[in-house]
Amino acid sequence: MSQALNTLKKQMSEKELSDLIITDYYNLKYFVDIDIQSGERMIALLVNDNGNYLFVNELFTAKENADYTIVYYNDTQNPIELLAQRLTGKHIGVDGKWSAAFLLRLMNCYPADYTDCGEIIAKIRYIKTADEQEKMRQASKDNDEVMSRIIPYLQIGITEKQVYNTLLELFEEITHEPVSFEPIVAFGKNAADPHHISDNTVLKEGDAVLIDMGSHYQGYCSDMTRTFLQKNAKIEEIYEIVKQANILAEQAIQPGKKLKEIDKVARDYISSFGYGQYFTHRLGHGIGLEVHEPYDVSQANDIIIVEGMCFSIEPGIYLPNIGGVRIEDLVLVGKDKAIVLNNFSKEKQYI
Amino acid sequence: MSQALNTLKKQMSEKELSDLIITDYYNLKYFVDIDIQSGERMIALLVNDNGNYLFVNELFTAKENADYTIVYYNDTQNPIELLAQRLTGKHIGVDGKWSAAFLLRLMNCYPADYTDCGEIIAKIRYIKTADEQEKMRQASKDNDEVMSRIIPYLQIGITEKQVYNTLLELFEEITHEPVSFEPIVAFGKNAADPHHISDNTVLKEGDAVLIDMGSHYQGYCSDMTRTFLQKNAKIEEIYEIVKQANILAEQAIQPGKKLKEIDKVARDYISSFGYGQYFTHRLGHGIGLEVHEPYDVSQANDIIIVEGMCFSIEPGIYLPNIGGVRIEDLVLVGKDKAIVLNNFSKEKQYI
Repeated sequence: MSQALNTLKKQMSEKELSDLIITDYYNLKYFVDIDIQSGERMIALLVNDNGNYLFVNELFTAKENADYTIVYYNDTQNPIELLAQRLTGKHIGVDGKWSAAFLLRLMNCYPADYTDCGEIIAKIRYIKTADEQEKMRQASKDNDEVMSRIIPYLQIGITEKQVYNTLLELFEEITHEPVSFEPIVAFGKNAADPHHISDNTVLKEGDAVLIDMGSHYQGYCSDMTRTFLQKNAKIEEIYEIVKQANILAEQAIQPGKKLKEIDKVARDYISSFGYGQYFTHRLGHGIGLEVHEPYDVSQANDIIIVEGMCFSIEPGIYLPNIGGVRIEDLVLVGKDKAIVLNNFSKEKQYI
Repeated sequence: MSQALNTLKKQMSEKELSDLIITDYYNLKYFVDIDIQSGERMIALLVNDNGNYLFVNELFTAKENADYTIVYYNDTQNPIELLAQRLTGKHIGVDGKWSAAFLLRLMNCYPADYTDCGEIIAKIRYIKTADEQEKMRQASKDNDEVMSRIIPYLQIGITEKQVYNTLLELFEEITHEPVSFEPIVAFGKNAADPHHISDNTVLKEGDAVLIDMGSHYQGYCSDMTRTFLQKNAKIEEIYEIVKQANILAEQAIQPGKKLKEIDKVARDYISSFGYGQYFTHRLGHGIGLEVHEPYDVSQANDIIIVEGMCFSIEPGIYLPNIGGVRIEDLVLVGKDKAIVLNNFSKEKQYI
């Protein structure tokens, strides 16, 4: 059985769970290397003392594997009943990502004590193995490469959409895998919206360019933001503050500290210049197979930092109707400090 | 209040639901025209006799609207508690697409009788208004246009990936909206897999080309499949069978019949030639704001056909290691028959 699945079984017995139901695409990939997008059709891995069962619609082909028995069903069958027939006890962990529709059907069909096992799974996935760390490094290397290759395109007159499309082409050429999320390209005022969707805005004199983007390497994600400058006193001022907040937060990372302490370092620094209210989001998020996964680097997160964690550090200042700056790296937690996975410069760069 | 929301309120009182919680992206778009992708952060519209409340993270900006009161929360607050505070009764409908994690948290925090209201919502959304019908027509018109423009590219030596990329460019040019799903381009044997992912397979002599694709028009989806031929006796034979199954099924559509009767028409026809076991999926699916939405045209579906429904008719025959043919149209149900939304020819076309 895979190491990950073994750890999961140990966690189940500690939590006295009779059964555990894993349904999320990424969790299935992580625990049993199943790569099936089953849409609205149920897919589930049931783990209990009788064995592991993978329920999947016969429209899809699951890899044979000694780790589980495959139970195929067709569109005329009720997969919830098939699943219920193989449950062994009354204390059932379910994947937090499962849909309420399936869960409520199972609850009706098999009354028991149901618990979200998202936390159990998160506690396994958040520490990256050596193999995963290597993939995270390579993904960020590719991301650095694309960021440096986009710079020549950032010329007055180009549109956000054109930069966006060029980014997709560069990623395709370098990584041969889908991007980890739709790149954000925001010019000038548009950068005041942290989630801006690239449109036909044209790059003008004085506009900064914010680019937030990420790639995949063998399924593992990268994610980085840089903001490129033109002469604009306000934006240049906040740039230095955000850069320093990023560096201070990264330097503060250490096993044993809490994630919220790291958020505080960046937030306090930004607040000391009076911009606290314009740093409207958490400092960072966990990353791995998913671009956002546990744990957040936020004011509310008491999770203790440990070696092998991987997360983003992305302070930002967003000034409505003026513009915004965000600078984001991925970091990997080492024995006593953070290893920053992005080597792309954070010094002011003018286009 | 919007017509759709009014109908929903009527349904709630019929089902004696005290509260209803809508969380799915498309449901929020449909009922209150909210277009927010909130990721792992909770978004929910609570509907009850006290009013309608939209809970959304302050990172996002929700349109002000007389139909609801906006309740913003931040990353340090527990949105489930805020939601629970505004519940009015003990019979609560929840969106079937909600995640188990949120539902289980709410169940813990506010014990009550929870029901999946997916069916209530589906029963409203499956009948398209005149305005929606118009958008569905236009989306399929665009899809027809792209299909006709891809033909000149289908030359020996081209790869699936190249055709795929060209399709994306054509859609971008014609529709200015994202595609409704990643196009499927499958050459030769690859077409034996109904869910084939386009790769670097090169088009060779004798290979048929299966293209399954769809666009958006003002958020509404199109979806069509055509299979283009080269000389290949087996594929040409199954082509005629699939084509006839498609036509017979479309002609059989009539308000008052059950969806499964339509599936049966196509399935029986294909089976009469001995290919029943190679038609491995349902005949079709509902479509609208989502590319797959209720109801399936399947052997199991007793739903009665009514005017205003919109769904796909897509029989296929998939011969392992040989190839496959699928021919798919969208249809809209009129007063007494189906109106086929795709006008792209189904006659044999050789490339």
